Amino acid sequence: MKIAILGGDGFCGWPTTLHLSARGHDVVVVDNFSRRAIGEELGAESLTPIRSLAERRAAWEELTGRSVGFAGIDLARDYEAFLDLLVTERPDAVVHFAEQRAAPFSMKSPRHKRYTVDNNLNATHNVLAAVVESELDVHVVHLGTMGVYGYGTAGMRIPEGYLDVEVPGEGGGVAQQILYPSNPGSIYHMTKVLDQTLFAFYAKNDRLRITDLHQGIIWGTNTRETGLDERLVNRFDYDGDYGTVLNRFLMQAAVGHPLTVHGTGGQTRAFIHIQDMVRCVELALLHAPARGERVKIFNQMTETHRVRDLARLVAELTGAQVETVPNPRQESPENDLHVVHDAFLDLGLRPTTLSEGLLLEVEQTATRWAHRADLSRIPATSLWTRERRAGIPASRTGAAPVGA
Amino acid sequence: MKIAILGGDGFCGWPTTLHLSARGHDVVVVDNFSRRAIGEELGAESLTPIRSLAERRAAWEELTGRSVGFAGIDLARDYEAFLDLLVTERPDAVVHFAEQRAAPFSMKSPRHKRYTVDNNLNATHNVLAAVVESELDVHVVHLGTMGVYGYGTAGMRIPEGYLDVEVPGEGGGVAQQILYPSNPGSIYHMTKVLDQTLFAFYAKNDRLRITDLHQGIIWGTNTRETGLDERLVNRFDYDGDYGTVLNRFLMQAAVGHPLTVHGTGGQTRAFIHIQDMVRCVELALLHAPARGERVKIFNQMTETHRVRDLARLVAELTGAQVETVPNPRQESPENDLHVVHDAFLDLGLRPTTLSEGLLLEVEQTATRWAHRADLSRIPATSLWTRERRAGIPASRTGAAPVGA
Repeated sequence: MKIAILGGDGFCGWPTTLHLSARGHDVVVVDNFSRRAIGEELGAESLTPIRSLAERRAAWEELTGRSVGFAGIDLARDYEAFLDLLVTERPDAVVHFAEQRAAPFSMKSPRHKRYTVDNNLNATHNVLAAVVESELDVHVVHLGTMGVYGYGTAGMRIPEGYLDVEVPGEGGGVAQQILYPSNPGSIYHMTKVLDQTLFAFYAKNDRLRITDLHQGIIWGTNTRETGLDERLVNRFDYDGDYGTVLNRFLMQAAVGHPLTVHGTGGQTRAFIHIQDMVRCVELALLHAPARGERVKIFNQMTETHRVRDLARLVAELTGAQVETVPNPRQESPENDLHVVHDAFLDLGLRPTTLSEGLLLEVEQTATRWAHRADLSRIPATSLWTRERRAGIPASRTGAAPVGA
Repeated sequence: MKIAILGGDGFCGWPTTLHLSARGHDVVVVDNFSRRAIGEELGAESLTPIRSLAERRAAWEELTGRSVGFAGIDLARDYEAFLDLLVTERPDAVVHFAEQRAAPFSMKSPRHKRYTVDNNLNATHNVLAAVVESELDVHVVHLGTMGVYGYGTAGMRIPEGYLDVEVPGEGGGVAQQILYPSNPGSIYHMTKVLDQTLFAFYAKNDRLRITDLHQGIIWGTNTRETGLDERLVNRFDYDGDYGTVLNRFLMQAAVGHPLTVHGTGGQTRAFIHIQDMVRCVELALLHAPARGERVKIFNQMTETHRVRDLARLVAELTGAQVETVPNPRQESPENDLHVVHDAFLDLGLRPTTLSEGLLLEVEQTATRWAHRADLSRIPATSLWTRERRAGIPASRTGAAPVGA
């Protein structure tokens, strides 16, 4: 299969690129290096010493004899260049990771909010409009997030994409199937809701074949391929903006800092190991919807955990202390989360569980590279709302509880 | 009340500006004249000879002694200028009309699709982000559309904004109230769905006070104020892109052309007279939601009609013939539409009905200015999909029936 990986230099894009290349697909990376530029802006480097894309590609070719193509395109701005790429390369599929993907970054300031909306929406819409204009039957696989649903409601059971409802009609209720209702907790998550709306429209109006992967929080750093050689190492972010909760705990443990849990740590989140993520992307590519079918939605996660239970797990493995700090997010302090995720299991996914993979991650990434850590970058500094910035707790603002 | 009218030079914005000024409010127009620029691009002028905004404002001041302010700002691009305006003028409310508003225009080409998404989304998001950054308690009133719901389902009864549903939970169903499910039929309508998502987020996260007016198709050209003097006349569009169905019929009748009905004309649409529209906007301004309340949604329409019944009505008044042409849109040929619209009636709106106002419109606008008409501009030239462009009827594409 010929596949363009949009955002192929990023945290998810790079291991996906190598996995698909290793599996025999013909892969071209499309990237504008915005993630590296944002790292410069934040003064926050990857813990792991990632190489330039040119060096990565050369190392991969040297090791495996497989070459990976590259096109430097800003998808939100360079529509014509992307259309040219489609028409010239004629890919069977594009995998679209090319969005600003950190919720805290999206909430830092009006500029960061505006960048995230402008960049993510125009990138997604340009991809869809270009596929239509190319007149090619390109399968669009997009990395979405479980976070489109929010985590506000106790006992919710999140299906894979769609919900049967009854709308009022003149002669009684009328059955409809709708996208599962969204409740995004940040500007970033909101852009993924906007993406869903674009996908539903283009699948219906232009009969594009689209798969949306509603992903949980990734943990783990390397896959089989990125672990082959130090020049292929994947990025590991632990700063307050891009570091996910587990990475932050791992780093804190590795440098002897207490694990900082936001609020009660009662927030339940969905997780998936990075090795499973790349497998899921290939499974999605191999099981595309038919033309004229609705958007295919997978819940791309394998287990759920409360944040405080994760902290306890890491503490047990490493001997670290656990400490609670105020929650910068506008959300309910405790929530349950039940996620239907049968589709990938049915397609043969065998998940890597936290209990079996976590120790390796502690040893091979966090401890190994701890000497490169800049501890000042760990705390979250983005505050979600005016009230949060003024130090007023969520319980006094009267706002609806939301997830992030 | 001090009010900024975003898009205040346009078809809805201008009569709203004058109505609110006449009612004693202090009004400032914000506009980048994109509607006039698009008219140039299309080579399609307003049937009525509209004056420059400078001449309009001077005439209004001369006639009434009331002045209307002006700021030339591209809301999708000039964020800082708009923020400055908020901080300097400190309006109580903004009325946001500043979006590309023609469905056929939004479907003309990839460039038109991309312009509509980029312009409408960034304009709306910049308005919201600027209100948050200003730290002022500005009520945002937005012109949405009934078209967010599509018109696909027989017998649907569209409530004012929200729907009670039950989502599956671990211990049985969990009650939720969600935005009424959307099903947009064009890129333009889709941008209004995206707007809704932004509004829900900002009302929840930042406690902005927001009202979204889900408007039907406007008919009529002038209000009491724009009818005062020829220099105040409102625009009347009859071209295939911006002309709404009733305006097209009126023009065709006035110049002795058969009324062209798309398909069977069985599409039911919601309508409102322009005089009622400006009254509704003021009612919405006077009945803002409280801080922390969800987005207030009104269905801003007063009656529904099938397109073929409208054609018959115009034919009876004018003696015109009726002719059917293929439908350029991807939609079901016949639909019912039942719209709840109690909120404005409860606030005292007394609707102008088609049966009482249509003859005046024929005489005072269509017939009066018929000599200015360019007949070549009447047919719709935008085709919604690849299949439509290739001349394949909707019934053979297998796509879901949708409304526009």
